[in-house]
Amino acid sequence: MVTINSNFLKLKAGYLFPEISRRVNAFQSENSSAKIIKLGIGDVTQPLSPAIVEAAKKGFDDMAKADSFHGYGPEQGYEFLRHAIVENDFASRGVQLDTDEIFVSDGAKCDTGNIQEIFSPLSKVAIQDPVYPVYVDTNVMAGRSGAADELGRYSGLVYMPCTEENGFKCELPTEKVDLIYLCFPNNPTGVTATKEELKVWVDYAKQNNAIILFDAAYEAFITEDHLPHSIYEIEGAKDCAIEFRSYSKNAGFTGTRCAYTVVPKALKGVSDTGEEVSLNQLWNRRQCTKFNGVSYPIQKAAQACYTPEGQAQLKELIQYYLGNAKIILEGLQGLDLKVYGGKNSPYIWFKTPDNLSSWDFFDKLLNEANIVGTPGSGFGACGEGYFRLSAFGARENVEQAIERMSKMNR
Amino acid sequence: MVTINSNFLKLKAGYLFPEISRRVNAFQSENSSAKIIKLGIGDVTQPLSPAIVEAAKKGFDDMAKADSFHGYGPEQGYEFLRHAIVENDFASRGVQLDTDEIFVSDGAKCDTGNIQEIFSPLSKVAIQDPVYPVYVDTNVMAGRSGAADELGRYSGLVYMPCTEENGFKCELPTEKVDLIYLCFPNNPTGVTATKEELKVWVDYAKQNNAIILFDAAYEAFITEDHLPHSIYEIEGAKDCAIEFRSYSKNAGFTGTRCAYTVVPKALKGVSDTGEEVSLNQLWNRRQCTKFNGVSYPIQKAAQACYTPEGQAQLKELIQYYLGNAKIILEGLQGLDLKVYGGKNSPYIWFKTPDNLSSWDFFDKLLNEANIVGTPGSGFGACGEGYFRLSAFGARENVEQAIERMSKMNR
Repeated sequence: MVTINSNFLKLKAGYLFPEISRRVNAFQSENSSAKIIKLGIGDVTQPLSPAIVEAAKKGFDDMAKADSFHGYGPEQGYEFLRHAIVENDFASRGVQLDTDEIFVSDGAKCDTGNIQEIFSPLSKVAIQDPVYPVYVDTNVMAGRSGAADELGRYSGLVYMPCTEENGFKCELPTEKVDLIYLCFPNNPTGVTATKEELKVWVDYAKQNNAIILFDAAYEAFITEDHLPHSIYEIEGAKDCAIEFRSYSKNAGFTGTRCAYTVVPKALKGVSDTGEEVSLNQLWNRRQCTKFNGVSYPIQKAAQACYTPEGQAQLKELIQYYLGNAKIILEGLQGLDLKVYGGKNSPYIWFKTPDNLSSWDFFDKLLNEANIVGTPGSGFGACGEGYFRLSAFGARENVEQAIERMSKMNR
Repeated sequence: MVTINSNFLKLKAGYLFPEISRRVNAFQSENSSAKIIKLGIGDVTQPLSPAIVEAAKKGFDDMAKADSFHGYGPEQGYEFLRHAIVENDFASRGVQLDTDEIFVSDGAKCDTGNIQEIFSPLSKVAIQDPVYPVYVDTNVMAGRSGAADELGRYSGLVYMPCTEENGFKCELPTEKVDLIYLCFPNNPTGVTATKEELKVWVDYAKQNNAIILFDAAYEAFITEDHLPHSIYEIEGAKDCAIEFRSYSKNAGFTGTRCAYTVVPKALKGVSDTGEEVSLNQLWNRRQCTKFNGVSYPIQKAAQACYTPEGQAQLKELIQYYLGNAKIILEGLQGLDLKVYGGKNSPYIWFKTPDNLSSWDFFDKLLNEANIVGTPGSGFGACGEGYFRLSAFGARENVEQAIERMSKMNR
């Protein structure tokens, strides 16, 4: 037999969401009349906005005629979309980027998973704990870790604890690292970072020759004006940070698929032999070799996010989810729970009552209130004893969920 | 500075198609009135078929309403599409597959590039020469080669020469290998393999514990009934082969993006510690971790390829390109050139006249006839002295190209 990439076998078999599905299905089959409300996985529920649907359909009309048909597009994305991104997502906030620093893709999951390919297999990786599992798993698969311990922590990775004590802002690495994954507004805790707090990370990265991999997938949910939407709002970040953005959550593209990654041209790395290399050019080479660009009609749909109609419709959509978040946040506070997030984020993170473990509370919530949430421990050892609810549900479900929770046995 | 994946620096800087673009642009800027005909890159030119456009737009209509909205889909693809694939592409040819052996993706380029991630970094890789550059480059990036020599051949890779002497069917590897990339109908030579010829490869792979990575992206262009469309038409192939398919060429999806990969459940590999592992499960894990599925409306569009209307429209489209191929094939034969492919393939491959090098003939063709083709040497050392033309152009351009070539200086 052929020899496989044995790093895959280090991965814990029970990935979080399949295990949730397993328990939900088992419960549903024994309680067929129970009306389960799902506030677990961070998937959106509201339809695509009219401006977006119209643009996508026009894109397919273009594809139906020889004179406006589009074959292979640029692997990096069409200039029309890259230009709209530079103007609307960055210039509007005082950040100057060139269009060739933008790489359009089919998802931030793909990009945060693939980006590690351009770095040395020996790179030391730091991650927040709790954290989005993709950062960890893709590095394990690439051989940057040893085995996992009983808590699910892999040797070789550097965990940066995010705890109540540090307000879930998380600690700087305790040893020299090469790559630092940061996510603000954070998944799963819903906590975000101020400019001053991000400045500490940027300074640290520059002083320690590290690259920050900044996941800003939830920036559209920031409501407080003084908070940064992009790490490039911090001086010096273009010298040390790659940023990931997505249309999944702000525009409901989880099933439509479009995102982008910013790799500034100022970013440099060094080869084994000491040669200085542009990370922008490396990522460009990776994308040109292993990716063929995003569907033309879908790039047209993404472009529509930036038209006046599109922007108004997205604002309404985000307000809807933020309204859900407020209901959950205030509802849980009314139950005397310690609650985080939910203000500049679609995620609400709270301490389980009675010091229950995350999975015990998962089962209790499912059994007593027929609500599906996400156990904090699924995101890492520091998530144990916490729980995540998502604001991406329909309003009536969110309202009913809080009502059900208020009637649970304490 | 952070250390990069230094394997990237082994890649030859001048990738084939950028170099073609550079020469074409230089020529056009000095000859602004020249009407250039492009028969180089394998991109399609004809619009999407009506049944496909209609299905895609209906898909977006679904996305516009809450009760038919689709968020995250299965990473492996929707059952409706996987089922249509199993029935139409395989059962119809006597091949029985389960839907969970099908993995829908956004492109065969991505899949042929990504598949190597599930195998050992030490795997020995065999490739046809000449060959589609992605197979080579992705393995170089993953560290499975040393440096390239003057001919562009990487040490550590095993090249299987496809030459006039062996009818471009290519030779078996001369040493023990783990992974064998095969492409039939072949890109670039347009040559395809009979069942008997593929049986030799399947038997060899089974005897030598190798996995065949079979790229069948051009199977729709097979016109002769006795030729296999899938490697699984060969007995034993499910034990040793992964197959790649694409909607790019048969349905014009180069700018729409959909493809799929077949990983039979019978396929096994072994870990460093001797543990037997299902390759189907490994690929599933890879896709679930680094990919988020194909856009829902685009999977609906792909599904439409299998409806009676869709099938009739695609047949017409393929006949159009095959008509082009016939014109090019017969035109070149009429010029006394030694010509291959063009019968069960959209590619026509021929020996350059007067023993010109591939790039010299490229320049001559561009300068004298204002036609862009692809130099055979761009696909590998054994392609030197050959040239590829693509049948994916518009009919009038193909006809004019042959007329122009007939008037060239000999």
